[in-house]
Amino acid sequence: MLDAQEIEALIREGVPMAEDIGFTVEAVDSGYARTRVPFNARMVRPGGTLSGPVQMSLADASMYAAILATLGKVEMAVTSNLNINFLQRPAQEDLVAEAFVLRMGRRLAFCEVRLISAGSETLVAHVTGSYALPASSGSN
Amino acid sequence: MLDAQEIEALIREGVPMAEDIGFTVEAVDSGYARTRVPFNARMVRPGGTLSGPVQMSLADASMYAAILATLGKVEMAVTSNLNINFLQRPAQEDLVAEAFVLRMGRRLAFCEVRLISAGSETLVAHVTGSYALPASSGSN
Amino acid sequence: MLDAQEIEALIREGVPMAEDIGFTVEAVDSGYARTRVPFNARMVRPGGTLSGPVQMSLADASMYAAILATLGKVEMAVTSNLNINFLQRPAQEDLVAEAFVLRMGRRLAFCEVRLISAGSETLVAHVTGSYALPASSGSN
Amino acid sequence: MLDAQEIEALIREGVPMAEDIGFTVEAVDSGYARTRVPFNARMVRPGGTLSGPVQMSLADASMYAAILATLGKVEMAVTSNLNINFLQRPAQEDLVAEAFVLRMGRRLAFCEVRLISAGSETLVAHVTGSYALPASSGSN
Repeated sequence: MLDAQEIEALIREGVPMAEDIGFTVEAVDSGYARTRVPFNARMVRPGGTLSGPVQMSLADASMYAAILATLGKVEMAVTSNLNINFLQRPAQEDLVAEAFVLRMGRRLAFCEVRLISAGSETLVAHVTGSYALPASSGSN
Repeated sequence: MLDAQEIEALIREGVPMAEDIGFTVEAVDSGYARTRVPFNARMVRPGGTLSGPVQMSLADASMYAAILATLGKVEMAVTSNLNINFLQRPAQEDLVAEAFVLRMGRRLAFCEVRLISAGSETLVAHVTGSYALPASSGSN
Repeated sequence: MLDAQEIEALIREGVPMAEDIGFTVEAVDSGYARTRVPFNARMVRPGGTLSGPVQMSLADASMYAAILATLGKVEMAVTSNLNINFLQRPAQEDLVAEAFVLRMGRRLAFCEVRLISAGSETLVAHVTGSYALPASSGSN
Repeated sequence: MLDAQEIEALIREGVPMAEDIGFTVEAVDSGYARTRVPFNARMVRPGGTLSGPVQMSLADASMYAAILATLGKVEMAVTSNLNINFLQRPAQEDLVAEAFVLRMGRRLAFCEVRLISAGSETLVAHVTGSYALPASSGSN
């Protein structure tokens, strides 16, 4: 299995925007990943908070981290669908994502991600999505 | 009404990621905006194409452009929901977005966005979403 | 290829709720289906209009009709994702659906459906979704 | 506050399809509802399982139950968006829904629903959605 550092390196290599936003992987387990974007990322304007695109980028990378944590290295997995509800404006704090695999099928992996302002522990966005897996990676 | 240049400036000011990806507004009309991200944006790795996060950022900014083109300057509009289906990997070409307002309600504006590889005219992603409007901006 | 009557029969056979709401298929072409639910369905209370569940059932059946119109008889296709935005309350009229295949992949078919009040020609809901196809049905 | 029986009666009154599928409310709390559709509903064909439209109807009614359990009687709340991922075919068992309010805003209530086959405790579908609230019902 891949550990948090290996998964972080794989994602930063594949998705430049993950590197741009300072994406880190903090913990992984089968079907799970906890990730983070620091508040001091350069995409925050003075007085502002982490934007919708930063939140979507974090959610997408976190789904992928949870899939890598479950299946090992899956090179050709691509996002198929992503649905995000923006619940409230994040605080001026790091943003933490908790990503869960809801169902690992043969061809699609379905995930859920909760984006949480790190200090105040407020749920700021809820995301679901699916990743299309390459032909032979799923277990059932 | 705002023209394409004014809308582009408003969005680049508010969302750093729009500026990062080289977002431009090409044409607007009431209920409509056509926007673009150049392929030569620095977020493309050698051999790669525009990533999912770039596509989501483009879609989100394009919905906002179509709303600004309809209502004029609306400072506090925020994305409420965004749903994206990734249909196929974009070509190594500019990405153009066609955004339409489906319904301008009093409190929510619903939009649809089609992301198209500019040269091959291939539909690469389809997006729908809603923006929460400030209390007094809608017309019905 | 299947014609509108054959597709209607296949769907009514497989989904009891399609029959319950009086679902009909009016016209089909490759990548397209136009379908209808009559206003006089028994699920409308006096004074009411067609409910959200009726609209979702119509949209789901219409996506399937457009797929059958494109691929011919596909027994094991199942809805994978459905996203609906309710734009406004339908009029006390028939509800017509225009369903389009956005992308027919090997493993997933992506569709868009517009639900329209038949008399007033008002867009009442917008739907996107994907169907998982059996292993050998897609064309690319 | 409303109890489970009162909420069940309100929903069955307003949505004929909820009554058709044998929808019951089993337990409610602020921000939460647990509901059920029996397997023996007449919409299941011999050998079949509860269809996609039944699952969507159950999810929509369950979101509404969780909102009623939180706010009390809210007459004009209407579904704004519903997104469902179908994870696997349900077993030939009752279907139970666990609905949670993710965020109760002034104008929109965001919910999550998990649909579970009652005997095997398998997650069969995951739903998120939003309800538009009347002008004065929210608490913040």
